[in-house]
Amino acid sequence: MPADSNLIVAGEAIKESLFQSLPERSKHEEFIRRAVDLLVERVVFGRSQRSAKVVEWAAPDEIKSVIDLKPREGPVSHDELLAIMADVARYSVNTGHPYFVNQLFSTVDPYGLIGQWLTDALNPSVYTYEVAPVFTLMEEEVLREMRAIVGWKDGDGDGIFCPGGSISNGYAISCARHHFYPDVKSKGVYAVPKLVLFTSELAHYSTKKMACFMGIGSDNCIMIKTDELGKMDVGDLEIKISEAINSGSTPFMVTATAGTTVFGAFDPLIPISDLCKKYNLWLHVDAAWGGGALMSKKHRHLLKGIELADSVTWNPHKLLAAPQQCSTFLVRHKNVLKEGHSSNAKYLFQKDKFYDTSYDTGDKHIQCGRRADVLKFWFMWKAKGSDGFEKHIDKLFDNAKYFLDHIKQRAGFKLVLENPECTNIMFWYVPNCLRGCENDPNYRERLHKVAPKIKERMIKEGSMMVTYQPQGNLVNFFRIVFQNSALDHKDMVYFANEFERLGSDIIV
Amino acid sequence: MPADSNLIVAGEAIKESLFQSLPERSKHEEFIRRAVDLLVERVVFGRSQRSAKVVEWAAPDEIKSVIDLKPREGPVSHDELLAIMADVARYSVNTGHPYFVNQLFSTVDPYGLIGQWLTDALNPSVYTYEVAPVFTLMEEEVLREMRAIVGWKDGDGDGIFCPGGSISNGYAISCARHHFYPDVKSKGVYAVPKLVLFTSELAHYSTKKMACFMGIGSDNCIMIKTDELGKMDVGDLEIKISEAINSGSTPFMVTATAGTTVFGAFDPLIPISDLCKKYNLWLHVDAAWGGGALMSKKHRHLLKGIELADSVTWNPHKLLAAPQQCSTFLVRHKNVLKEGHSSNAKYLFQKDKFYDTSYDTGDKHIQCGRRADVLKFWFMWKAKGSDGFEKHIDKLFDNAKYFLDHIKQRAGFKLVLENPECTNIMFWYVPNCLRGCENDPNYRERLHKVAPKIKERMIKEGSMMVTYQPQGNLVNFFRIVFQNSALDHKDMVYFANEFERLGSDIIV
Ligand SMILES: Cc1ncc(COP(=O)(O)O)c(C=O)c1O
Ligand SMILES: Cc1ncc(COP(=O)(O)O)c(C=O)c1O
Repeated sequence: MPADSNLIVAGEAIKESLFQSLPERSKHEEFIRRAVDLLVERVVFGRSQRSAKVVEWAAPDEIKSVIDLKPREGPVSHDELLAIMADVARYSVNTGHPYFVNQLFSTVDPYGLIGQWLTDALNPSVYTYEVAPVFTLMEEEVLREMRAIVGWKDGDGDGIFCPGGSISNGYAISCARHHFYPDVKSKGVYAVPKLVLFTSELAHYSTKKMACFMGIGSDNCIMIKTDELGKMDVGDLEIKISEAINSGSTPFMVTATAGTTVFGAFDPLIPISDLCKKYNLWLHVDAAWGGGALMSKKHRHLLKGIELADSVTWNPHKLLAAPQQCSTFLVRHKNVLKEGHSSNAKYLFQKDKFYDTSYDTGDKHIQCGRRADVLKFWFMWKAKGSDGFEKHIDKLFDNAKYFLDHIKQRAGFKLVLENPECTNIMFWYVPNCLRGCENDPNYRERLHKVAPKIKERMIKEGSMMVTYQPQGNLVNFFRIVFQNSALDHKDMVYFANEFERLGSDIIV
Repeated sequence: MPADSNLIVAGEAIKESLFQSLPERSKHEEFIRRAVDLLVERVVFGRSQRSAKVVEWAAPDEIKSVIDLKPREGPVSHDELLAIMADVARYSVNTGHPYFVNQLFSTVDPYGLIGQWLTDALNPSVYTYEVAPVFTLMEEEVLREMRAIVGWKDGDGDGIFCPGGSISNGYAISCARHHFYPDVKSKGVYAVPKLVLFTSELAHYSTKKMACFMGIGSDNCIMIKTDELGKMDVGDLEIKISEAINSGSTPFMVTATAGTTVFGAFDPLIPISDLCKKYNLWLHVDAAWGGGALMSKKHRHLLKGIELADSVTWNPHKLLAAPQQCSTFLVRHKNVLKEGHSSNAKYLFQKDKFYDTSYDTGDKHIQCGRRADVLKFWFMWKAKGSDGFEKHIDKLFDNAKYFLDHIKQRAGFKLVLENPECTNIMFWYVPNCLRGCENDPNYRERLHKVAPKIKERMIKEGSMMVTYQPQGNLVNFFRIVFQNSALDHKDMVYFANEFERLGSDIIV
């Protein structure tokens, strides 16, 4: 199959002065116009069609043979650049495709995209009002609104847009630690008792990773058991807290999850909060995935008690379908972000500026330069309104329910959870060869091999993308994730049909 | 002055189904086409003209009165969205303007922008080959080439694109710590002796910030004196290492800087490396700013000895003018990133995939979702070639030299450093009222007040943007930063003229 680059004939090499870093009409206008046209036609609209492929699978060597990935001495022409763009798009996974339901992000929201393109064209860094006035104020408004939606009075508190929910979960640890032990900032963890924190065994791995990175250590990130629905076992939490205290450690925080990564389970926030109060622990709620449900009157009960949290991670790039990345850390305490992270660099945060420097918010985060991830989300919010986000969320849950009910009645589908809480649905697809063999001694072992085989076919055909994983005692199962509100019930049937088509004759 | 939004008449409210998260031609084509046109005409070309304003200064309340920043219940129309885009652009600082020379980033490179826009349209997250095949391979090639340019044999080692140089400097601390004390990962900092690291008093604040965040503490980030050129004093480094050892602490790393943030000074890497060998310390070189000079045969000598480093931070978004953010962490040791940060999440890094899972590189970083910051830089590299980057760098240094020589001969300019090494030039502008008063007892105090006053005028007129700061004993001085290779000698004279115009009659 010829690569897309063959469709565009290579032209003359670009001129000498094209090394310069400024867009100039005489040199770049034609190129930019053609490039934008390619983006809109081939990428934005071309790839969001159901008839497009979700993925054009190619092994590493194949991609390397089509796209000359190595940087070279000399420049290439504008025509070649356009061909390269087409190839990069072609061999990239089509995460904007309606049938890319593989991760907790998907779809390229049209308003989100335009907001992102505008951000790029403005190329800001958000740390001082001086260089990012609009973005600074926009962050303030959006974060306040999000805190109000969480349920904190008047939206008071503080917050920050982060490069991902993992880093947000790290901020939570940092703020909790600083809240109880401000000495850590200058003296390090050496200065304080041995700190331990708690999260569930089904929580996202970032809490443990960040605990390692932050010098606390994975052993001191204590995993709490979950019940059959994947929710944190509050009894076990109290046992583990007591055990830690008895062994001489000092508990300081619990990270509960509102929408776990695989099961979409919501930890019981109210009893967890009660324990946090009893033992004087910081309560962080990782709502990276489930946070979007707060926008829906119908579904926000899933996060009941979230207003009791000290801090919250909420990624609009997940359930609300903002472009990658859009992650927030929200905190009820007004000063802890600033006090815990400021370093007062004089070259950036001059106090003798002519405007109110309380708008220079850059010292409260651990980054220096920071992307303006707010605009794309704010722009979507303008375009759709809170009402639009509510409809979006309600549609996702409706689709998930429809898919669940549909596969419940269909041969070959076996649910992992009968009543999943969020929009991820977990199931095994049982091929013909395994039906009726449930009691065979090697059934589980054979079933474990099914998902990777279906996945391989799925990717090679490019008809959809759904992820699988094992978990605990459960052998490999599929997790389909609904996060694109343009899908409808027909699409739900499509997914089920595809599993049947790709999977029924699998031999294991 | 009427806001741009008045130029576009608000139209009918967008339709009900526009809450959906997928671009559809019938609903969005017209809007997207008009939005893109606005971006190309008004933002990309409109703002890169010398005749445009660098900033349209507005106080917070003014911006809030023009742009309705608060999220609302209902949607707004496409016409209103276009008007909002225009307003956001208008009140945002024009960082792409040739006369925005305020930070260590500037200009919106046309190829970088198109690369970024393509990335956004593909909306990838780089953690597995399965969902980001092209980006995974592209990162590998670009990072290898960068390591080769640093001077490591065959470009061997490892690396990662990070959300900013600050986080890169954090990775350096994490890798160094893991290299010597792998137990920290599970047991935390408690398990090891009291660690201390060293960096210069003029190093970027991120090393200290990250040391706090990572549980080491700012007291254990020991600041080394600098000489009159702003370079780390190697004698003082050895004294501080000995002192630390004698006081019972355990030195484990030195972060040297290749291009300091304010002075653009390059620490002497070879003698620092000798000390690191003598005391068995990890050598990290923060070349976030100066790294780009490695692309020039003429200027790479500034970083002599960088190949002796264990790890390097290099931000292509600074001297090489890639769009925000584009930051890399490069490390000579092949396995430390992975061993230090992996957590083997089974839901993402399944080992039974049908392809070679060594391409699933996401477990070596502390993020989960991660932006594909590589494409914009790679695309610029394609468009310009290494030759183009070399010309870019040489032009920047040539401009800086010209500006320096020019202001040396001009009344009112007083240099902070006679021979700065990088493309940042530091100077005081002395208004008429202060000339000849150098020996007055309150001269310094008065001079300190000049820069904020000039800056205020500058911003309110919008004719250029240059930052100022105090440093140590030095009262407020300007730092102009050359990073845009489309500037030429005439522009250098423009800057000097502007200082004279804005500053000569300042009264302090
Ligand atoms: C529950 C939860 N928390 C945190 C994260 C991490 O978010 P990010 O990928 O933005 O770092 C994820 C990612 O899937 C998640 O599912
Ligand atoms: C020398 C140096 N290192 C690190 C950084 C931090 O880079 P970033 O802003 O990408 O976090 C800077 C930023 O100016 C810098 O000048």
